Amino acid sequence: PSRLPGYATHQVGVAGAVFDDSTKKVLVVQDRNKLKNMWKFPGGLSEPGEDIGDTAVREVFEETGVRSEFRSLLSIRQQHSHPGAFGMSDMYLVCRLQPLSFTINFCQQECLKCEWIDLENLARTKHTTPITSRVARLLLYGHREGFDKIDLSMEEVPAVYTGLFYKLYHRELPESYRAAVGTD
Amino acid sequence: PSRLPGYATHQVGVAGAVFDDSTKKVLVVQDRNKLKNMWKFPGGLSEPGEDIGDTAVREVFEETGVRSEFRSLLSIRQQHSHPGAFGMSDMYLVCRLQPLSFTINFCQQECLKCEWIDLENLARTKHTTPITSRVARLLLYGHREGFDKIDLSMEEVPAVYTGLFYKLYHRELPESYRAAVGTD
Repeated sequence: PSRLPGYATHQVGVAGAVFDDSTKKVLVVQDRNKLKNMWKFPGGLSEPGEDIGDTAVREVFEETGVRSEFRSLLSIRQQHSHPGAFGMSDMYLVCRLQPLSFTINFCQQECLKCEWIDLENLARTKHTTPITSRVARLLLYGHREGFDKIDLSMEEVPAVYTGLFYKLYHRELPESYRAAVGTD
Repeated sequence: PSRLPGYATHQVGVAGAVFDDSTKKVLVVQDRNKLKNMWKFPGGLSEPGEDIGDTAVREVFEETGVRSEFRSLLSIRQQHSHPGAFGMSDMYLVCRLQPLSFTINFCQQECLKCEWIDLENLARTKHTTPITSRVARLLLYGHREGFDKIDLSMEEVPAVYTGLFYKLYHRELPESYRAAVGTD
């Protein structure tokens, strides 16, 4: 049933998996304060009104100094009773980003280390979180078999009555299916 | 950068696309109050602490009387300045559900109509919302080519330190990639 007015129940965090297909390296950090000695993707919380791809690009830049561009959504995690979320639920998304620069200039307050590391090493190491390891393997699969195997592509779609647009993420749909009639 | 404490910025809504592969029919409703004459999937807002698959199954049952089971996540929409969201952002997810019962007993307060309709008709009609039309085409693609083409599968993964589990959604990863070592 509809229950208006709704209320915000989730914080949204986004990580950026910046992967360079030509060198097979991916950008990872180690937190200064928590998860020591664990490689993970840079990321953080969305600002109000910020699209997830923009959060990923911004957080990657703030943490690592590397500029990048949104490519796709890879993974969604929902977690309740998250320690940092104070009773709220947490939606955590991982995006695939294309690097536009490579020089690291990382935030010393947040990060202990920041490196471009070989994707196979990240997929194999024990020094990482379960979700990072899983996404590293997804990237490896995409690198070898084509990113269409792992990507959710993004598209702007008009809202029905408001004149606004929203962003929709799903598997790529073949042209023959997109071309079918309908209101979009 | 981390900004603790975080705060909830999003409401989460979930729709259920209940599709019966054997009859090629999908369960749709027409709202009583808004979007008149537009077929859409039943759905509504997540309760605090509720997993998205559970929201989809619950809302489908409450609106239509049909029992179903979670199969996969199909699509994610992020929208800001959503009219019903009062300044919050809105994350709207569509799940694929397997019907466990077929008799419709719909909520007269919410719905004007509720029917099992042919999936091809839903993919083709103009009497639907853009996102419903898009998901109908995704389902058609999945029905014809295999649901692995469109599904994000769900898995429970342990959190690093808390002893809790969370649910992770991404493309199915081939066994050879899952078997690689790592902490999960």
